[in-house]
Amino acid sequence: MRYELYYWPGIQGRGEFVRLALEDAAAPYRDVCRGSNRTPESPQAFAPPYLKAGKLLIPQTANILLYLGPRLGLAPRNEAQRLRLHGLQLTIADWLVEVHDTHHPIAASLYYEDQRAEARRRAAIFLSERLPKFMAYFEKAVDDKFSYVHLSLFQMIEGLQYAFPNAMRKMKFPKLRKNHERVARRPRLAAYLSSKRRIPFNQHGIFRRYPELDERS
Amino acid sequence: MRYELYYWPGIQGRGEFVRLALEDAAAPYRDVCRGSNRTPESPQAFAPPYLKAGKLLIPQTANILLYLGPRLGLAPRNEAQRLRLHGLQLTIADWLVEVHDTHHPIAASLYYEDQRAEARRRAAIFLSERLPKFMAYFEKAVDDKFSYVHLSLFQMIEGLQYAFPNAMRKMKFPKLRKNHERVARRPRLAAYLSSKRRIPFNQHGIFRRYPELDERS
Repeated sequence: MRYELYYWPGIQGRGEFVRLALEDAAAPYRDVCRGSNRTPESPQAFAPPYLKAGKLLIPQTANILLYLGPRLGLAPRNEAQRLRLHGLQLTIADWLVEVHDTHHPIAASLYYEDQRAEARRRAAIFLSERLPKFMAYFEKAVDDKFSYVHLSLFQMIEGLQYAFPNAMRKMKFPKLRKNHERVARRPRLAAYLSSKRRIPFNQHGIFRRYPELDERS
Repeated sequence: MRYELYYWPGIQGRGEFVRLALEDAAAPYRDVCRGSNRTPESPQAFAPPYLKAGKLLIPQTANILLYLGPRLGLAPRNEAQRLRLHGLQLTIADWLVEVHDTHHPIAASLYYEDQRAEARRRAAIFLSERLPKFMAYFEKAVDDKFSYVHLSLFQMIEGLQYAFPNAMRKMKFPKLRKNHERVARRPRLAAYLSSKRRIPFNQHGIFRRYPELDERS
């Protein structure tokens, strides 16, 4: 099976959670809109990313990972474990929305500069209340049995350290940090992360560095 | 199997999407925190609702419905259809976050009164841009094969008409309206909706009526 991933070509965004799984498993896939003029939009998906797998068109990041997990050896096949991992992945999705909304609390369609005051308010509370709560939850939830959730947690830590270096430096999260280091050392992941296929973080993605939204150093 | 639903006892909220499925299927369940002092919080779930089903503890609304769907006769058993319905349910979850954030764009932990100016900005763009986009997507996606997604779309329309009566009156959505009417007439659902088990909409839930956030009549 050769998978086709449809996502915006210029950002890591939500598509990156799927790319990490495909890359770690060395699964044959095509990132369809990279280096082309194709749009990742489709009437069947409310928003990118979606995955084409044979006749299937699967929208929603967590749904894609639910499907891919057992096929890529990144999730067990039994239902109880799949539901547990999926619950974690959906909570990562919620977390990611809150990260996005630190810089776009009013509307995704407005520029950051047009909602900067609101962003400061939202980001401050995100960093003081929500981030510690999510981190504490996943610090307990991350376990030794490797799965696509571990890849997604790597990406969350990577993105948060990019966006909020000061706030992250003050936090203690030994298990998530260890997971982050382990994932970065996985041979296929390491090769991917240092390749041109890995799009650098930038000011169009979900994780953005606006120093005024971070804590003071 | 007697299911146990854990959710906040005073609001419809996310728990209602699960209640509608359980009620429509006449499934034996206990709404554990109703009429008791128990809290629906658990270290295993980042946030309520979660469902206990035998030894399983399933967090995240859409995950619960993914599990319950085929068991309650509200989703087919084949994977392609389940993934399709789940993709729709996850998009409903995204929509619901945006509804919530119309009145709480800065933080769930602050009072509405402390983020009213931001709420007006966010709600106006939600009503002009996002609501029509979600409605148009689901107007096409809703089909004749009944499922838990149809119950959730009933709840979305019901809640939006409560929160934004003026904006909703101006919108055309014949299929979603027809689905809303059909669901309300299903015998078990009708019995549930007129029972005391159905918590009325109120100013603590996700759908709230703040006239200043709605369009003018």
